[in-house]
Amino acid sequence: MATRAPTSPAAAGASGRASRLLFLRCPSTRFRLAAGRSATALRAQPAAAEVVEQSVNTIRFLAVDAVEKAKSGHPGLPMGCAPLGHVLFDEFLRFNPKNPYWFDRDRFVLSAGHGCMLQYALLHLAGYDSVTMDDLKAFRQWGSRTPGHPENFETPGVEVTTGPLGQGFANAVGLALAEKHLAARFNKPDLNIIDHYTYVILGDGCQMEGVSNEASSLAGHWGLGKLIAFYDDNHISIDGSTDIAFTEDVLARYEALGWHTIWVKNGNTGYDDIRAAIKEAKAVKDKPTLIKVTTTIGYGSPNKANTYSVHGSALGSKEVEATRNNLSWLHEPFHVPDEVKRHWSHHIDEGSSLEAEWNKKFGEYEKKYHQEAADLKSIISGELPSGWDNALPTYTTENPADATRNLSQQCLNALAKAIPGFLGGSADLATSNMTLLKMFGDFQKDTPEERNIRFGVREHAMGAISNGIALHSPGLIPYCATFFVFTDYMRAAIRLSALCGSGVIFVMTHDSIGLGEDGPTHQPVEQLFSLRAMPNILMLRPADGKETSGAYKIAILNRKMPSVLALSRQKLQHLKGTSIEGVAKGGYIISDNSTGNKPDLILIGTGSELEIVEKAADELRKEGKAVRVVSLVCWELFEEQSEEYKESVLPCEVTARISVEAGVTFGWEKYVGQKGKAIGVDRFGSSAPAGKIYKELGLTVENVIETAKSL
Amino acid sequence: MATRAPTSPAAAGASGRASRLLFLRCPSTRFRLAAGRSATALRAQPAAAEVVEQSVNTIRFLAVDAVEKAKSGHPGLPMGCAPLGHVLFDEFLRFNPKNPYWFDRDRFVLSAGHGCMLQYALLHLAGYDSVTMDDLKAFRQWGSRTPGHPENFETPGVEVTTGPLGQGFANAVGLALAEKHLAARFNKPDLNIIDHYTYVILGDGCQMEGVSNEASSLAGHWGLGKLIAFYDDNHISIDGSTDIAFTEDVLARYEALGWHTIWVKNGNTGYDDIRAAIKEAKAVKDKPTLIKVTTTIGYGSPNKANTYSVHGSALGSKEVEATRNNLSWLHEPFHVPDEVKRHWSHHIDEGSSLEAEWNKKFGEYEKKYHQEAADLKSIISGELPSGWDNALPTYTTENPADATRNLSQQCLNALAKAIPGFLGGSADLATSNMTLLKMFGDFQKDTPEERNIRFGVREHAMGAISNGIALHSPGLIPYCATFFVFTDYMRAAIRLSALCGSGVIFVMTHDSIGLGEDGPTHQPVEQLFSLRAMPNILMLRPADGKETSGAYKIAILNRKMPSVLALSRQKLQHLKGTSIEGVAKGGYIISDNSTGNKPDLILIGTGSELEIVEKAADELRKEGKAVRVVSLVCWELFEEQSEEYKESVLPCEVTARISVEAGVTFGWEKYVGQKGKAIGVDRFGSSAPAGKIYKELGLTVENVIETAKSL
Repeated sequence: MATRAPTSPAAAGASGRASRLLFLRCPSTRFRLAAGRSATALRAQPAAAEVVEQSVNTIRFLAVDAVEKAKSGHPGLPMGCAPLGHVLFDEFLRFNPKNPYWFDRDRFVLSAGHGCMLQYALLHLAGYDSVTMDDLKAFRQWGSRTPGHPENFETPGVEVTTGPLGQGFANAVGLALAEKHLAARFNKPDLNIIDHYTYVILGDGCQMEGVSNEASSLAGHWGLGKLIAFYDDNHISIDGSTDIAFTEDVLARYEALGWHTIWVKNGNTGYDDIRAAIKEAKAVKDKPTLIKVTTTIGYGSPNKANTYSVHGSALGSKEVEATRNNLSWLHEPFHVPDEVKRHWSHHIDEGSSLEAEWNKKFGEYEKKYHQEAADLKSIISGELPSGWDNALPTYTTENPADATRNLSQQCLNALAKAIPGFLGGSADLATSNMTLLKMFGDFQKDTPEERNIRFGVREHAMGAISNGIALHSPGLIPYCATFFVFTDYMRAAIRLSALCGSGVIFVMTHDSIGLGEDGPTHQPVEQLFSLRAMPNILMLRPADGKETSGAYKIAILNRKMPSVLALSRQKLQHLKGTSIEGVAKGGYIISDNSTGNKPDLILIGTGSELEIVEKAADELRKEGKAVRVVSLVCWELFEEQSEEYKESVLPCEVTARISVEAGVTFGWEKYVGQKGKAIGVDRFGSSAPAGKIYKELGLTVENVIETAKSL
Repeated sequence: MATRAPTSPAAAGASGRASRLLFLRCPSTRFRLAAGRSATALRAQPAAAEVVEQSVNTIRFLAVDAVEKAKSGHPGLPMGCAPLGHVLFDEFLRFNPKNPYWFDRDRFVLSAGHGCMLQYALLHLAGYDSVTMDDLKAFRQWGSRTPGHPENFETPGVEVTTGPLGQGFANAVGLALAEKHLAARFNKPDLNIIDHYTYVILGDGCQMEGVSNEASSLAGHWGLGKLIAFYDDNHISIDGSTDIAFTEDVLARYEALGWHTIWVKNGNTGYDDIRAAIKEAKAVKDKPTLIKVTTTIGYGSPNKANTYSVHGSALGSKEVEATRNNLSWLHEPFHVPDEVKRHWSHHIDEGSSLEAEWNKKFGEYEKKYHQEAADLKSIISGELPSGWDNALPTYTTENPADATRNLSQQCLNALAKAIPGFLGGSADLATSNMTLLKMFGDFQKDTPEERNIRFGVREHAMGAISNGIALHSPGLIPYCATFFVFTDYMRAAIRLSALCGSGVIFVMTHDSIGLGEDGPTHQPVEQLFSLRAMPNILMLRPADGKETSGAYKIAILNRKMPSVLALSRQKLQHLKGTSIEGVAKGGYIISDNSTGNKPDLILIGTGSELEIVEKAADELRKEGKAVRVVSLVCWELFEEQSEEYKESVLPCEVTARISVEAGVTFGWEKYVGQKGKAIGVDRFGSSAPAGKIYKELGLTVENVIETAKSL
């Protein structure tokens, strides 16, 4: 049996090797703190073989028992992956259970999130306060910290939210990207301040999802050497054997994608093989590694192992009993043997020492590298540098008309200068989305310190990788970009961003039929509403330069909520009444010639249609009407305002209201009411020059005026 | 130079080989009809080398000129792929330009849809009436048949709608699946009635998208030997060289996925290499083939070839001139030389003969195989067998409560018996979605005649493949299934289904927080609205057995519009007032104790909440209230009804209205008005037993009664 491997090749210097030898000669089952040796050299002995076996069965039966109690859940994966889970968490993973947020911890992601009892059991054994025995017993119950899939916002120690297959794997690529980037930016020859691995377990389901291939292709391209993925190859998915739908050669595919690959043929009992594979993977620095670990789903269940029936249902009391007999585990439910407790307890001291040592090192770093340390602290803490928002550009009506995608680029470049953790890129549309940071180069395999990320045409992975980057450190603020219509390709990742509270900024240009000739496949019409319908996300559609700056200010400030910015391809006038402050309220008056909060008519617009509305108002005012123009740039923010404020903008009494937006009118009833009128695009668009489409579909000043007169 | 290859290996018997030899000995540039020989043996001679060169340059400059005239478009791909396009269309593709819908035609898909001028130029040269010279000159203009990306609903001859990358490729997998399935079901040893190939061109962008890997993995698994994909390997995407984001070994990946692969290193001038590759690909029967064709994007442009600037913009008049000089093409814009016209003209006779021969063969088939011919005719024409809807099950309140996913399975099985072209499957959730057709086996490589399709965990490809199946033949009616929340994974494919008018049936179970313990990652809350916002799609949420049958009836009848069925995991009561006919109106009264169309209160529900609403109404009626209950099972259908009908269901005068739906309330303002109240779930869900979540979130009879009293 091998000793615990050095936790990272870079950290393992001579003393690491010395201590390893020392412990090989001096077996003991207990953690030891060698006086006068640095904490990185601290090594726990791996458990004796019989304790390993006990620990593995503890993990298996915690999963079996929790699922049985909940009468719901997925026992199969934890039973099959318990050996891998034990070896990884007990012998390799660097973490501090008493501070799950310690910055330089290794990251672990269970992409096959249905197997979450594996993770909960491991967190429990490792001493995390977030998963007590009571929590395990409350698995999948209302208000518990052990929900049906891992949720970072419920359970400290869970890094990301998984379950929708493939997402966690792509998140892991984002976590590994973040590590590589930060290490390249902040490590110094004398002080290796950032040095951790990202481990992820994915199953057959994750492998089949396209998002994982996208993310794998990028991970290979970027050479993310500290990403180690375990493919739980158990040949079973919900519909039965993978033979019915998944017969490709996975390792060959990963080799084609530029990965190092290893196959552990006996993942059920081959502990040493698992150990050797992880060591080999850690030693390969220039490529990510996929370790295919062949396991038996539901290992130990005499009648259900290796069948789909153990994947997603409780075993049932009879089979639980049969499994206990089969694995000689004649304990009460939720039993953790004392030897297992005793063995795992070393992680508390070890974790604390790891963090203390790192803190000491960071103290030195701070003294020597003042500016870098300040930047890194901002990234670690999420505290924004004071005055960052002064960097946002402002505009007047004198500025030439411009597309909000161009104005967005000015914001992006301003923010990248002001905020150390600001980085991002586009899915092969950087020059259309206008997202390049001009003062930086490309994040690439050999230039990972740079901040322009080239995602290729991979929207879905882009979103999920961005979630991973954001969840790596509170001060990392990733943005990602494509055409607005292609939010459809990445919607599952956007939803997880909203759910898991990663404050990613989605920069979505070409936001309407206004993109013109590319036609209906490229023209979003329903995307605004489909995102307004999503909980916990801000859908912003700025109308000009000030509103674009305002939208970015909101996006940066909301670190637990993603923002989607819908930006125009076409040029727009800078309007008089718009403001950064107005955007913060979601909806506000930009012009008005009424008195006493009683306009004859309220015209409401967003984005590129606000200037149409404003022009129509000018015309109507010339005819003596009292007209108010409201910019409803962000519905979610407007809804958060006080009733008084909302009434001051949209007084109930005034029912003559018209909205103009180049998208479906569905949903506008909320603001225009049953007597008002919504002008929009209730159909797919068309291929033609933008001006022509606007005219044909009635998004014109003339039509607004005519409609106003009809009310 | 080789002759035109036999159009399909199966069709090329001794006479095929004989005719090939004959023509090798007897060169001629014109099409010939050999008397007494069957039309499959008809072979046009390939054009002489100089005509090929002229034809290729014609294609290039039609693209250059059309883009230049539109001042918008993508000349790069057509310039690079013109040689491939010429060889494929002129020498291999079997089609009848005067009947683009001839059933046994080869299918061609341009997955890299931005390069649509390649396809339009080829359709024009081949003699399709849908693309005249005037159409080419109206490229990308309002109302033209030559929109900015290929659209099957605008341009006969275009099989599917492409542009969003990867979609067309996955559609092609669906087209090839359809061919393999129908051939296995209907071909007889003496009559090979179905025998055509599917060709698709995809670019670097398509390759990067996850959906194409999903579809490729399935195509390899299914052994779609008659699918031939050309990968236009031009090393350029919008952001520049593919080196910045796409460095994997594509051919090795495809080999891992079970494909046959070929590399044509000189796609610019290697005509014979292209020919040889296609022949080789056609000869490989058990695997799909990927032909990597290395080309130069913008070939011929002296200053822009091989750069991203030729990808998506007009060349500009100077560079157009330089390109004309460089390729010695000193013609006016839109010039088609007479020799080129003359050469291509043979396709009109040839196509007509191909179809005539097939019609003759089908006549024989009809005589010999009466039932099979009737079924196949239904598939070809889209005419449903009379009385098909009698197969739909009906229910009474006496039937035991059941989940609508189970009731759905009864419909699916009934429909599969009644409709010859009905087939489908699930993304690895068949036993959860309840989508297995019990009387059929699995569509697999060696059992392609079966109708249960196993998509694996590949929702996105599932949607796009289903689009391809539906567009293969009007009478093929594919359904596909996953959990409702995972419509997010396949939204781009669903949108294209709506846009292109493929009447796919999306069977989406586990449609709310009612799925319980799997938690918020699996609980849809905003998906109903995000799909209601999409144009040209029916979002149906049936409440019980009769409504489920009604929903399927609507879905089957709407062959140009997809339907999404949201179905429950949990059991639901069969209600008294529901009906199949009611569903057809989208919204209808299911119970009412009011008179004179003046209820005190209208309660509106959908799906699983309709029974809650009905129970609350019963209680309120006991207290003397006049309460109407409305099922709003499909908003789109309700909106299509007359104003009178809508008023009869939801009279304006009655403002006391409550809606109950286990999803976001956003959008319900439309029906409950500003004085009504929407009860729903305006947050993400939670992991807990379903009953508990319903109670905690207020989706209860008690809450409805309390809310009613507050109005």
